[in-house]
Amino acid sequence: MEPQKKLINSAESCVDDALLGLVRASGGLSLLKGHRVVLRSDLENLKGKVALLSGGGSGHEPAHAGYIGAGMLSAAVAGGVFASPPPGSILAAILSLHNAGASGVLLIVKNYTGDRLNFGLAAEQARNQGVAVDMVIVAEDCAFDQPSKAGRRGLCGTVFIHKVHNNSLIDVLFTLETAQLTPGTLGVSLSPCSVPGCLPSFDLPPGDMEVGLGIHGEPGIKRSKVASADEVVKTMIDHMTNPSSQSHLPLKSGDSVVVCVNNLGALSCLEMAVVTRSAIICLESLGVVVARVMSGLFMTSLEMAGVSLTLMRADKETLRLIDAKTTAPAWPNLSNVCLSGRSYITEPQTTFKRPQDEKHSEGPLSPVMHKALEKICSTLLEKQEELNSLDRASGDGDCGNTHAQAARAIQEWLQGHVVPGCPGKLLSVVAGLVQEKMGGSSGALYSLFLTAAAGHVTEGRSNAAAWATAMNAGTEAMKKYGGAAPGDRTMLDALCPAVDELIKLATAPSGGHMAVLQSAVKKAASGAEATRDLKARAGRASYISPNLVSLPDPGAVAVATILKAILEVLEGRK
Amino acid sequence: MEPQKKLINSAESCVDDALLGLVRASGGLSLLKGHRVVLRSDLENLKGKVALLSGGGSGHEPAHAGYIGAGMLSAAVAGGVFASPPPGSILAAILSLHNAGASGVLLIVKNYTGDRLNFGLAAEQARNQGVAVDMVIVAEDCAFDQPSKAGRRGLCGTVFIHKVHNNSLIDVLFTLETAQLTPGTLGVSLSPCSVPGCLPSFDLPPGDMEVGLGIHGEPGIKRSKVASADEVVKTMIDHMTNPSSQSHLPLKSGDSVVVCVNNLGALSCLEMAVVTRSAIICLESLGVVVARVMSGLFMTSLEMAGVSLTLMRADKETLRLIDAKTTAPAWPNLSNVCLSGRSYITEPQTTFKRPQDEKHSEGPLSPVMHKALEKICSTLLEKQEELNSLDRASGDGDCGNTHAQAARAIQEWLQGHVVPGCPGKLLSVVAGLVQEKMGGSSGALYSLFLTAAAGHVTEGRSNAAAWATAMNAGTEAMKKYGGAAPGDRTMLDALCPAVDELIKLATAPSGGHMAVLQSAVKKAASGAEATRDLKARAGRASYISPNLVSLPDPGAVAVATILKAILEVLEGRK
Repeated sequence: MEPQKKLINSAESCVDDALLGLVRASGGLSLLKGHRVVLRSDLENLKGKVALLSGGGSGHEPAHAGYIGAGMLSAAVAGGVFASPPPGSILAAILSLHNAGASGVLLIVKNYTGDRLNFGLAAEQARNQGVAVDMVIVAEDCAFDQPSKAGRRGLCGTVFIHKVHNNSLIDVLFTLETAQLTPGTLGVSLSPCSVPGCLPSFDLPPGDMEVGLGIHGEPGIKRSKVASADEVVKTMIDHMTNPSSQSHLPLKSGDSVVVCVNNLGALSCLEMAVVTRSAIICLESLGVVVARVMSGLFMTSLEMAGVSLTLMRADKETLRLIDAKTTAPAWPNLSNVCLSGRSYITEPQTTFKRPQDEKHSEGPLSPVMHKALEKICSTLLEKQEELNSLDRASGDGDCGNTHAQAARAIQEWLQGHVVPGCPGKLLSVVAGLVQEKMGGSSGALYSLFLTAAAGHVTEGRSNAAAWATAMNAGTEAMKKYGGAAPGDRTMLDALCPAVDELIKLATAPSGGHMAVLQSAVKKAASGAEATRDLKARAGRASYISPNLVSLPDPGAVAVATILKAILEVLEGRK
Repeated sequence: MEPQKKLINSAESCVDDALLGLVRASGGLSLLKGHRVVLRSDLENLKGKVALLSGGGSGHEPAHAGYIGAGMLSAAVAGGVFASPPPGSILAAILSLHNAGASGVLLIVKNYTGDRLNFGLAAEQARNQGVAVDMVIVAEDCAFDQPSKAGRRGLCGTVFIHKVHNNSLIDVLFTLETAQLTPGTLGVSLSPCSVPGCLPSFDLPPGDMEVGLGIHGEPGIKRSKVASADEVVKTMIDHMTNPSSQSHLPLKSGDSVVVCVNNLGALSCLEMAVVTRSAIICLESLGVVVARVMSGLFMTSLEMAGVSLTLMRADKETLRLIDAKTTAPAWPNLSNVCLSGRSYITEPQTTFKRPQDEKHSEGPLSPVMHKALEKICSTLLEKQEELNSLDRASGDGDCGNTHAQAARAIQEWLQGHVVPGCPGKLLSVVAGLVQEKMGGSSGALYSLFLTAAAGHVTEGRSNAAAWATAMNAGTEAMKKYGGAAPGDRTMLDALCPAVDELIKLATAPSGGHMAVLQSAVKKAASGAEATRDLKARAGRASYISPNLVSLPDPGAVAVATILKAILEVLEGRK
């Protein structure tokens, strides 16, 4: 088994490369020369204030350097992947903040022995040099009912502490475990992760998940088959708030919380949004007020496909700090609205009626339009197999079926409705039927043609010139949205030459209209026939080698057929 | 082969669940009842303005609904996973914006046939109802040298268009392909993705990558072994800017660009930061000015482990629009500083000298401290095997070696340096040596003890009381940062009883000091001996079954040994 290939330059350089990537991409960050330390570029703004320093092993990006900025951290120290940073670099970071004029430095450290010792050592060394330093240990893992002597692990809750702090040296408050502020966190993963150049940190069969694991892949509390998002989230929140667990988060109905739904690395954004919904609904079902939710990548475990939930009870002051502006690049764009209780459904102001459902009244043109529609439908049904057979040569052989579906939908509609006297309204009806029942690209294209044409033929304006404009508008819409042009071996090869003729209706004397129509139908037929020699450049047939197609395009043939049917009805009337 | 398990409730519900998750988590979004349409909650603010509507298939989260907010989209319509939304929902969205008083609606649509047709159809239907609608097609894929008739695909560049627009109906500008604003995008992936409930969209052997693929897993332009991040990015940018490709982005030295490094779904944040660095460096090597960089999840392909680069030339006005505030939840917290040319390295203001490298001067206490150090070292070297053997019972058997390493480092230092007269300085020197050469938790713990003690014994204040305070401070630091307590079977079980005695130095008459020391050493020895009966609760031995350990803790024995060595030197002096 080989280590997974990653998009890095080398396992050795990846931490320094990633830090440089973050710093180069952020206008407010700077690297401390000779160390894996990222600082605010505007250190001068720390003068007289308590600076905040965090850090720890890499592989948890954007933690911690992504949280550097006004309102959050002043600096962060990075170790190797999943390794605590050396005390020398932590001390260098502390001294940089001190030298910039900070009145003191507060270290925010996740509860891992290596980090406690290394940050502790640097803190003591800095104290010996006269720097006021204090340290907060974040230990908010809710996994274990009886945490070991080492205490609860520090997880994504650390990000909340980066944002919510009172910017003064705490001194007495050494760990956050007993503080009001304590968040609680629990993770679940569907996959392990692997340190660059190494094999995965543990085995997890596909379809299994592990609950309660640490951000370095440390063992969790149980494994099971992957359940539904709602079930997984309920299991997690039940466990996190179970009073019989020593590491539970005390949470009761009426409490207000800030929630972090944290992608452990490789969960899709779709899944993240689903889990976010589950978390909000589950908390609200417990009577908890969900004040703010952040959902995204905050404290990752390389490419672990999992998610952790962090809950923190939030009073007014906590919310003020969560809402406060920050320039930290990894802090999300949150709104300052309480999420529980707000209205999030908009009622449509007008209930849109499908044109085919509207009541219409007949007019002088109704009978001939009725006849034309009937003729189109019967012809398309007759030609069903012919069109299918043409389509089998280049597509999936259902062109006749698709047109037959449209024809039957129109026939059915005709049985229960009168044909409106306004031609535009009829075109809209047919557009609606075709859009809904014909399906596929042809359905959309016909519907587009009819819809774009509909606006140009109204009850008061339905002379030959209006029809010419309408047919032209429909064709233009088809070309515009469909992206094809004449010569691409599509229905346009029949339609466009016909419409080029039909446009003459606008200027032809009224005695010459039928001749224009006849000429247009001929042009459509010859245009369809000429597609035999065309290479498909749009539509499904474009994926087929041109040598394989020697039959005309079924879509173009269908258009010619429809136009011919209309002409026959109009000729019959005359 | 089974479809990959995902953290969702069902393949059928995942799109609606995800939309609800996004809307519930965001204070400024609302769902249009009966449709997969997300709207700004504050529609009243659109009165008299052109509203922006986008959308498309799901599976690309946070696109598009995450970009809804003041300064970006007014609404977004979602289809099924990788499926175009139905025209009925698009029309409902347009009408909602129109009814809210928008002066017009601009549709921003990615160049896929389904989206063009469905958005086009809805646009034409809305026009028939008197709504001013226009449409922009984003087509910025740089993959194909000769794009097919369907044109270039719309990818992550769409996100830039959501932000950078002039909020007026464009009308003439139907596609962005020829516009100044056109971004260019190219993707690379190390894995396929899979639609919920389906098998992966394509096969890609582990260790291979594909360049130029689409956001639904459509084929790209070439496959190869995964190369280094720098090489991959150079290949991508070379291809994107190659003038012999019809779909290249014209880019010349001196041009200013905005860059989006887009995680296609499952690339780790560490890799993302590495790729971000590569992109900035590569562009700058071409003389391009990198004005802004956004790096993160913007237009995803479910859980595809890949990245796309989007480049957009940016003049002053474009940058103004990129920098403008927005409430859209998925827009990142960018700074408005030009990244190329800014200084991003901070020089340490003080070069920190390791205590062991500093020049010291001798004092009255130097000879006895020299002797004590020598005695400690020789004793630890004598006891090396004894300590290893104790450690083999409970740990990895190197406790003697670790202490021997420290002893040899101190011996070596003593040969080249004078022992400073200030005891605190000597403790700092030893702390530095131990931190660097001893390694492991013991190194950090001894270093902590010595560092915390050092501040309490200075040249002017080195009487017995000061030493008592120093020893106590060192022990407290060990307890505080190490997290262990007496009784946990660690070095504290020897150290704490001894320090409890040593504290009496503060009040004992000067004639009684030696008696206190003798008593402290005895307490240390008996404390170490008593660890035989203790269950390990901290340190490495805590992972071993208590029945297996019947020997004293090697760390405690080492502490007792060191204290005894010091006593022997002091007794010898007397």
